[in-house]
Amino acid sequence: MKTAMLITLNTLAALALTLNARAAAPLPSWNDTAPKRAIIAFVEQVTKEGSPDFVKPGERIATFDNDGTLWVEQPIYTQVTFAIDEVIATAPHHPEWRETEPFKSILAHDREAMERFTIQDFEKVVAVTHSGMTVQQFQEIVQKWLADARHPRFKRPYTECVYQPMIELMRYLRTNGFKTYIVTGGGQEFVRAFAEPVYGVPPEEVVGSMGKVKYDYGKDGKPELIKLPDVLLVDDKTGKPEGINMVIGRRPQCAFGNSTGDQQMLEYTGAGGGARLMMLVHHDDARREYAYGAESKIGTFSDALMAEAKKKGWVVISMKDDWKTIFPATVK
Amino acid sequence: MKTAMLITLNTLAALALTLNARAAAPLPSWNDTAPKRAIIAFVEQVTKEGSPDFVKPGERIATFDNDGTLWVEQPIYTQVTFAIDEVIATAPHHPEWRETEPFKSILAHDREAMERFTIQDFEKVVAVTHSGMTVQQFQEIVQKWLADARHPRFKRPYTECVYQPMIELMRYLRTNGFKTYIVTGGGQEFVRAFAEPVYGVPPEEVVGSMGKVKYDYGKDGKPELIKLPDVLLVDDKTGKPEGINMVIGRRPQCAFGNSTGDQQMLEYTGAGGGARLMMLVHHDDARREYAYGAESKIGTFSDALMAEAKKKGWVVISMKDDWKTIFPATVK
Repeated sequence: MKTAMLITLNTLAALALTLNARAAAPLPSWNDTAPKRAIIAFVEQVTKEGSPDFVKPGERIATFDNDGTLWVEQPIYTQVTFAIDEVIATAPHHPEWRETEPFKSILAHDREAMERFTIQDFEKVVAVTHSGMTVQQFQEIVQKWLADARHPRFKRPYTECVYQPMIELMRYLRTNGFKTYIVTGGGQEFVRAFAEPVYGVPPEEVVGSMGKVKYDYGKDGKPELIKLPDVLLVDDKTGKPEGINMVIGRRPQCAFGNSTGDQQMLEYTGAGGGARLMMLVHHDDARREYAYGAESKIGTFSDALMAEAKKKGWVVISMKDDWKTIFPATVK
Repeated sequence: MKTAMLITLNTLAALALTLNARAAAPLPSWNDTAPKRAIIAFVEQVTKEGSPDFVKPGERIATFDNDGTLWVEQPIYTQVTFAIDEVIATAPHHPEWRETEPFKSILAHDREAMERFTIQDFEKVVAVTHSGMTVQQFQEIVQKWLADARHPRFKRPYTECVYQPMIELMRYLRTNGFKTYIVTGGGQEFVRAFAEPVYGVPPEEVVGSMGKVKYDYGKDGKPELIKLPDVLLVDDKTGKPEGINMVIGRRPQCAFGNSTGDQQMLEYTGAGGGARLMMLVHHDDARREYAYGAESKIGTFSDALMAEAKKKGWVVISMKDDWKTIFPATVK
């Protein structure tokens, strides 16, 4: 009797989910071109019970790069802008920076010098702005910065410089039983500070470059996690499948990126059996966003990556041709 | 119209979940003593909408130690037994081990020498048995070993030397919207090899000690993740909140352990606001399992930990008094 009731209720719950999934036409900001059709065909393959490609709901994993895949990365990575702004904001507490590079150039707003910054220079900037506070304090600093900062061209918050078609894709996948992970070269705790309200992605589904943290006790004796300047994982290129293994422990069925930093994640995803979907956002829309590729320092989409995509059947999304809109229309 | 239908179906789905949760009396293997009452009171507090302690379903996190909390850790950690068996099994490929410690003592079955093994000795054993293969190959080796190995006293597979009351507790928490993470000092990939069928915990909800992995290409050109002998995280003591931050990124509302290695995880959990539940399994049942505590090298439950538990209101579970049964009755 109890069992019968449970089965009926479970069936109802499943029915409710299924009907929810079908209620609205999916992906309204996508043109009816090859990428949209590939997404819908893939989802039908893996969700259709009895299909040879069927994947159980708990095992459906999608991974998304962030910079250039979910939000704007030009003219400079948002996290770098944050770090530079933080150096300027905290400079009064660091008189020594006025005489020390790379801080000196930042404080002098010397754009030419900043364009010549090496990886080591950026590492120094990240080290001082991303350590020495608790994880919670850091995320509050990021949230406060995101609330005030505006993109130099689009004059809106960075959290509204996200790609509406990709937001719809994440939602469509979640409605179909996927967990939608972010797998970003950016800082894990930087992205966690906004991923839930902006993308609907909770902290435990954000994989990113990781710094060490140290468990310690504050002045009040309360335990806290202090961010250290040491790097634990650079979640880019081969670091992406490595980070996926650390946090997820399963191979995704689909993966979405936009640059050479995502190649290994797409390769790793594609090497599994059954239906797979690998997609690359191609920035070819100078009018509505940016057009860049092989020659760009940020978000490099090399000719070799394009050749690899063609060879392996990875779907290249043309922002110009495949997306009706780029950004969400209204502030949420 | 569509919206109205969605609301109705969502309500039905929620109703189904609620009724499912209430259908069976929870925690049947627990005596009706203080620990069971504390669990039920805690769950009611955090799940009751409108309660000041209410936590949204997606944010409900429970963390469980594994060795000594979910399964037997005496007379020796299961993973150590696995590593020793692996040394013996693979010795024919390593003639040099016959002359090199600590392998020489293992191959000579010299129990006395093995009892004197240092941490460094064990590290050498773990390094050779837990690296040099792909993550997938390693998990297949573990699964094969678990299928054949038997606990020396209970004469049943290690995966059946799990604590039935804790399995029921995990299930009860999941039914009430919690994610039940394992946070173990054992190897993350070792525990992932059996956590889903045995505990209902998927790979992405297993935090453990982590070794580095390397993304590379096999002979067939297929990408794979190779286990390296380098340690990335020792997920014990202060490493537990650090590992929780890496993989989960949220503070748990409840945490379950059994030894000094779990103290920081319980502290960190308890330092959050609202209702919290911290519990320690106390092994005081020599007849049905084992009795050990402050003097034990494995699963040390120091007097200081007991004092801390009393001071902070952590609930100590007496296996003897609070659990009706220890192990699952039948092979599943």
